[in-house]
Amino acid sequence: MGRSLFISFEGIDGCGKSTQIRLLNEYLKGKGYDVLLTREPGGSVISEKIRAMLLDKANSDMTDVTEALLYAAARDQLVNTVIIPALEEGKIVLCDRFVDSSEAYQGFGRRLGSEYILDINRRILDHLPDITFYFKLTPEEAQRRISNMKRDTDRLEEAGISFFERTNEGFNTIAERDSDRIVTLNAGDTIENIHQKITDIVDDYLNR
Amino acid sequence: MGRSLFISFEGIDGCGKSTQIRLLNEYLKGKGYDVLLTREPGGSVISEKIRAMLLDKANSDMTDVTEALLYAAARDQLVNTVIIPALEEGKIVLCDRFVDSSEAYQGFGRRLGSEYILDINRRILDHLPDITFYFKLTPEEAQRRISNMKRDTDRLEEAGISFFERTNEGFNTIAERDSDRIVTLNAGDTIENIHQKITDIVDDYLNR
Repeated sequence: MGRSLFISFEGIDGCGKSTQIRLLNEYLKGKGYDVLLTREPGGSVISEKIRAMLLDKANSDMTDVTEALLYAAARDQLVNTVIIPALEEGKIVLCDRFVDSSEAYQGFGRRLGSEYILDINRRILDHLPDITFYFKLTPEEAQRRISNMKRDTDRLEEAGISFFERTNEGFNTIAERDSDRIVTLNAGDTIENIHQKITDIVDDYLNR
Repeated sequence: MGRSLFISFEGIDGCGKSTQIRLLNEYLKGKGYDVLLTREPGGSVISEKIRAMLLDKANSDMTDVTEALLYAAARDQLVNTVIIPALEEGKIVLCDRFVDSSEAYQGFGRRLGSEYILDINRRILDHLPDITFYFKLTPEEAQRRISNMKRDTDRLEEAGISFFERTNEGFNTIAERDSDRIVTLNAGDTIENIHQKITDIVDDYLNR
């Protein structure tokens, strides 16, 4: 049985994490490791049902608190029925987003606050990832995205911009606070360089 | 515009609250009040979708924490999109179950604890009912139900008995603690007597 390892990947949509998860998955499988690939929200039968509710545009009147509670509900189910059993079997779990996304998007972006988000998620805080890779946008890339958003400015898009800025800043704040767990990567670097940095860190952890 | 009033009805399944909600609804409508009848979990489009998840037997592997978070999610949506708007229009809202059910069933019954349940529900604690009618089983009625459960004892039913006992005791504890808000009624009394007590209290509130 291998050494279990729980890795999450965090960052704004389009930061490049999906590509890196795919590359790391291939790399680890190529070395013979038993890898479980999962994602949030989702990853278990019940969690995928909750995901469908969260992503359904018909549910546009969902309150911010309901949204945050649904993310937390999907997470508890995923952790207890999928992630913990996989780790107990010695697998490596790669998870696309975890609790940091809730804190960044709902805590900072929706302004529910870190304390509330961590409180409703507190039953899974004993099961945080061993390593979290955070794909940090360069200030230039962040600025470019905001400029794109501003092109057709209306009230909704203004909200979109400040939501984006708060969420992005949230990720930065969390990554600095939890730097023991979270490895911050420059999302503007090349795919090859980022992959190399990730495999160096993962190999180091597995060979400890 | 009438005086708004938010009333919830609590107790173990089969305690008789549905009958009393129906009778009070008819009574108030007969007096010309604008009444909104709702229920938990459910009562709004999103909350009814969550209700379907909670009641779907295919979801039997749902964790206790996920269950508690889903109830809280459904509640926030109901409070903000249905109950508060109705109260702002001066309506009387009758709600079949509210946060006390979460505390009794998930906090006591599932043993997640009152603190955790009240914490995940804290965003709606500013919107507690004006009056809660709690239908308390007589010790004889509680004992009768336990005897019925014991008839075909297996492991699951044993869990059912202690779950029932803890939930029942939870309701009693909550009703004693929050006696300013919660009116405890003897569920073993006649339908007429209980209805009379309820209308006396509601009339008193409306004529203050």
